[in-house]
Amino acid sequence: MTSDAGSSGPTATIRVAAAQINTTVGDIDGNARLIEEWIGRAQEQGADLVAFPELTVTGYPPEDLVLYDNFIAANRAALGRIAQTVGDIVALVGFVDSEDGSLFNAAAVLYRRKVVATYRKIHLPNYGVFDERRYFSAGNECPILSIRGIKVGISICEDIWEPVGPSEVQCAAGAQVIVNLNASPYESGKQGHRIEIVTRLSHRNRVYTLYVNQVGGQDELVFDGGSMLAGPDGDLIGSAARFEESLLVADIDITSLERLRLHHQAQAVPQDELDRIAEPTTVELDVPVPTVRPQLPELSVHRLERLEAVYRALIVGTGDYLKKTGFKKVAIAVSGGIDSALVTAIAADAIGAENVVGVALPSRYSSEGSIVDAEDLCSRLGVELWKIPIEPGHAAFEEMLGEAFEGTEPGLSEENTQARIRGNLMMSIANKFGWLVLPTGNKSEMATGYATLYGDMAGAYAVIKDVPKTLVYELCDHRNRRGPGSPIPQAIIDKPPSAELRPDQLDEDSLPPYGQLDRIIHMYIEERMSPDLIVQKEQALPEGGASEATVRRVVRLIDINEYKRRQSPPGVKITGLAFGKDRRLPIASGWQR
Amino acid sequence: MTSDAGSSGPTATIRVAAAQINTTVGDIDGNARLIEEWIGRAQEQGADLVAFPELTVTGYPPEDLVLYDNFIAANRAALGRIAQTVGDIVALVGFVDSEDGSLFNAAAVLYRRKVVATYRKIHLPNYGVFDERRYFSAGNECPILSIRGIKVGISICEDIWEPVGPSEVQCAAGAQVIVNLNASPYESGKQGHRIEIVTRLSHRNRVYTLYVNQVGGQDELVFDGGSMLAGPDGDLIGSAARFEESLLVADIDITSLERLRLHHQAQAVPQDELDRIAEPTTVELDVPVPTVRPQLPELSVHRLERLEAVYRALIVGTGDYLKKTGFKKVAIAVSGGIDSALVTAIAADAIGAENVVGVALPSRYSSEGSIVDAEDLCSRLGVELWKIPIEPGHAAFEEMLGEAFEGTEPGLSEENTQARIRGNLMMSIANKFGWLVLPTGNKSEMATGYATLYGDMAGAYAVIKDVPKTLVYELCDHRNRRGPGSPIPQAIIDKPPSAELRPDQLDEDSLPPYGQLDRIIHMYIEERMSPDLIVQKEQALPEGGASEATVRRVVRLIDINEYKRRQSPPGVKITGLAFGKDRRLPIASGWQR
Repeated sequence: MTSDAGSSGPTATIRVAAAQINTTVGDIDGNARLIEEWIGRAQEQGADLVAFPELTVTGYPPEDLVLYDNFIAANRAALGRIAQTVGDIVALVGFVDSEDGSLFNAAAVLYRRKVVATYRKIHLPNYGVFDERRYFSAGNECPILSIRGIKVGISICEDIWEPVGPSEVQCAAGAQVIVNLNASPYESGKQGHRIEIVTRLSHRNRVYTLYVNQVGGQDELVFDGGSMLAGPDGDLIGSAARFEESLLVADIDITSLERLRLHHQAQAVPQDELDRIAEPTTVELDVPVPTVRPQLPELSVHRLERLEAVYRALIVGTGDYLKKTGFKKVAIAVSGGIDSALVTAIAADAIGAENVVGVALPSRYSSEGSIVDAEDLCSRLGVELWKIPIEPGHAAFEEMLGEAFEGTEPGLSEENTQARIRGNLMMSIANKFGWLVLPTGNKSEMATGYATLYGDMAGAYAVIKDVPKTLVYELCDHRNRRGPGSPIPQAIIDKPPSAELRPDQLDEDSLPPYGQLDRIIHMYIEERMSPDLIVQKEQALPEGGASEATVRRVVRLIDINEYKRRQSPPGVKITGLAFGKDRRLPIASGWQR
Repeated sequence: MTSDAGSSGPTATIRVAAAQINTTVGDIDGNARLIEEWIGRAQEQGADLVAFPELTVTGYPPEDLVLYDNFIAANRAALGRIAQTVGDIVALVGFVDSEDGSLFNAAAVLYRRKVVATYRKIHLPNYGVFDERRYFSAGNECPILSIRGIKVGISICEDIWEPVGPSEVQCAAGAQVIVNLNASPYESGKQGHRIEIVTRLSHRNRVYTLYVNQVGGQDELVFDGGSMLAGPDGDLIGSAARFEESLLVADIDITSLERLRLHHQAQAVPQDELDRIAEPTTVELDVPVPTVRPQLPELSVHRLERLEAVYRALIVGTGDYLKKTGFKKVAIAVSGGIDSALVTAIAADAIGAENVVGVALPSRYSSEGSIVDAEDLCSRLGVELWKIPIEPGHAAFEEMLGEAFEGTEPGLSEENTQARIRGNLMMSIANKFGWLVLPTGNKSEMATGYATLYGDMAGAYAVIKDVPKTLVYELCDHRNRRGPGSPIPQAIIDKPPSAELRPDQLDEDSLPPYGQLDRIIHMYIEERMSPDLIVQKEQALPEGGASEATVRRVVRLIDINEYKRRQSPPGVKITGLAFGKDRRLPIASGWQR
């Protein structure tokens, strides 16, 4: 059977582009320049339409900046300037719209120097790391663009995560292509979930869906791109690279849609959604077929292996935090342990080994092996290593505190003092030379409070704070396998973890084995299970899991260490639930589970 | 004209009680005991109805605790147990209701061992420090209680802050008394605003309004009570004490209401509010007139002078943070300056001088006067003062950093090092003895970053972090006036502020005069004015304000120091906009105003 839709002739094809760019929150002028540049690139590719990520002009998430009137005004002015540069291409640009004191997370349709239509996000996420109802009112219209007769519906991010939403309303009104603008932050495994959402949406509505996501790091979030095009059969036609800027360009031929829809029962839109959304209006845009329309390379689907995706997220998050805060160089306390080894490797990969200074801070309790391992690591990475023994400081604090501590037994206080001497040295060095300190604590430590506030927690950006210890090991192995080089000495990977704050100290003296610990943390934090349920799950393990006492001790440690986490630096979110604005708990709390 | 409503006879009067209690977030069992105890007190007073604050069972704000199923289950179980203790009195108790996976900020009506009705909050605040749409769905029903024929409408907090809301719907359906459950955090001047809201509501609906607020500190928030009863003439009939637990009991005689309403045009309820809210149903409760009905003391209106209110907020916030986190004793670095003087006085007033240890940490740059002033302060307060000269640590850090810093000029790094030696000493002491450190930074410093991260910012609870420097002076004067004693030496109040981190250093070398600085901070933070507007306002001052350069420098300082504030300890919110969850800004930001 051949298609009978040939009658729509040359106008049955539209060339669309997803501009997966790395904006900076608040840098309205810089973002505007970036948008103009990428509109140009899309035109060079002969695109009829180019779509940018959510809130392109302001960057995402702009947070309370949007509560300043002058910020909103600057964002509107920039949109106007961008519009002035737009000719015979339809550009969809995210910005903050405002009306009668209300703000909207919106997409402007720019065409021939004008804003020809605006779409305002209808479903506003207010969970996890998202606070959109703090700022925005919900839109209630979903205009459809008719580009040479091809009908395009616009929506923003969360709008397509609802089981039935504006896309269904638009498809019922004839939309053949859905363009969805996103700022969807990375978490491990999320791209698979996005593909599922987008391909299902396409299939159930027999529609093409162009999904545009941003890339780059913004404080605790990393946006991983992976923009994509899905077809009406529910197939993923192509996707952009992850974690880097990219222009995904594709020709969409809607000829076969009519046939596909012939026997397709359209999605029923529930009444409450119809109440929320006005009947779509159509904006006719007679975009001329571009005279230059270069041959496109065949589309492919970019897939990234789990550990490589996490590693890339850590590199991008760290690199962008430095770039966007205006710092070039970092100092890392390199202990010879596995956490600082991983952070040093990530930093070197993110900003170049020449911009990383390792500092070894041996104490009277440091093993000989620690220094050797630190040296080996830094020499393999090409990172400069400074050595500053902390004994003078250690002795001075014993002297200063001698009288006050007389008659007490050395314990946790004395251990923390050492960690804070190190923290002070690192901060002094960073302050002196205008660098940032990258602390090296992992998620297992952040969870249980097995870290010293103002000591090893001190610094600007806690690269692996959302990486559980067991994943730290996997990532070190992965980094050695992926190259370049094999920078992490096997000795560091093999030795038992120790804070080396007293003689012969081992992590497992204070904490359960990391395998158990990380399972409990995952269940309690990410799955929000009750301790009772965690005990059940552990006891059901074939090899027998953690004891009830261990589970309750870990949960208690997590609960009582909220005060430390509240004062911890930001770091890259890589899991489904990170510490930070993803998880908001009282410090003073009487809840004992 | 005489009232013709005498026919309603003895049932024209209802005795209501507002139980202004201090719950602890998460301490469900403790809160339940407290509720039962205060129901008993209300019964002793012969009350027909007793109302508790918003989310009484869980404490407010429970934050992400409500996302744990076992927390919700525990809260429901506690409500059930409380209901079992309720006899011939109507108790309105706040709890988290749940249905089909949705949560509601609700009030249960308990009567004769049963939950006889439930009200679910309709208007959910999601601004400032509030995140209620993160957790809760909106209710859509507002049942009315008929107690011996007297009609009582329930609502929760934000519900009465809307220009027209559930109270209007309830009044249109005959409600004669509105009971409003609150968890309204303190900010300077807010009680006046609440009185306005409540009296206007009463007047425009010709209704009695019983407003119940909680008291006590919870992390950064302090709830200040001030529960009140307003009458249908718009008069404030009486209010409870501020900042302390209290039972406000009043007889409401509705006899005159009918007459008042005769010529009163009822509020028109707009259609969108009617769409949101179902037609009220009435729950009949034949509460017998209590046999014991003691004579009530005459109601009075408690007023608190501005500075005393702020001072009480600081005491309660600090005292409750300690009590609710389980700590008894604090250490404060007493520099001889005005900030640490104020914090020491507050701490002594909050938990007793015997639970406060001052620590003087003189360096080579400390003036003789500083030690003398610190001694004078502590002796007046009865606070123990330790002296630990930091020279050994200072010299040791110079030694340890000598090689790394060779050829550089001493500057900010060296100053910060000293502050961090002090921070380390304070934390070591607190860790050793199980105390908390109270850092002493004020809002002017937090705004401009004129404080050292991990140095003088180190500690558990930053008592005056929301108190601008000019208010620090006012509060010290106030504390000396209010007594007991006159603990803050005039020498401390009179000397020019200095961090004493280098010879002859004065704050005004680095910062504009505090009067100017605090105005700019207020306009930029609390009023969210643009720098341009602030410049205009300053230039319009009769005495001529800050220069444009000063305004822009201060704004820039505020912007670039977000990273420090993100790692600062919590502290009492006393202004309309505090740092913390009240103000959420990106650290990495390209916005330059």
